[in-house]
Amino acid sequence: MTGGSSSSCGACKFLRRKCTTECVFTPYFCYSQGAQHFAAVHKVFGASNVSKLLMKIPMQNRSEAAISISYEALARMQDPIYGCVAQILALQQQVSQISLR
Amino acid sequence: MTGGSSSSCGACKFLRRKCTTECVFTPYFCYSQGAQHFAAVHKVFGASNVSKLLMKIPMQNRSEAAISISYEALARMQDPIYGCVAQILALQQQVSQISLR
Repeated sequence: MTGGSSSSCGACKFLRRKCTTECVFTPYFCYSQGAQHFAAVHKVFGASNVSKLLMKIPMQNRSEAAISISYEALARMQDPIYGCVAQILALQQQVSQISLR
Repeated sequence: MTGGSSSSCGACKFLRRKCTTECVFTPYFCYSQGAQHFAAVHKVFGASNVSKLLMKIPMQNRSEAAISISYEALARMQDPIYGCVAQILALQQQVSQISLR
């Protein structure tokens, strides 16, 4: 992707920088809520950490990694104490309750 | 906590710095695997992000927050694509399978 903020991905929109063809975030934050989700990712993980993490993952898996990272970040913003671990605990409880029936 | 590395918390041991009474990590990374767990936390979230996050949480909830953050970080190190979201997906599948019986 080239050009200014109007054609920038959600990450570059949030970071107020020009989106280039080298931008690692472009394919994964180019949707209407991309900038909003990236804001959470940036706050919780840091753009640099996520960039490094994505670069180490094979290209075909990066989209799912970006989704799971966004999911964790949004959960941590909603619940700063437990983040998405709250869901794991609730689901584990649900499984044990259903199993006891 | 005062003094050099021998009495430092796991975070300060990993960061090779002196642990002071102001160290936000001391109460939560002072166990045998503290430095190892903090290494994952540092790599995935960044020490600064976690410090900011802990400081915003009431003191009585910080221990559980540190545990859930460590949990997420270790899961992401083990599974860079899905992290602990893999567990959420597996548990959701388990719940729906049990419910169908």
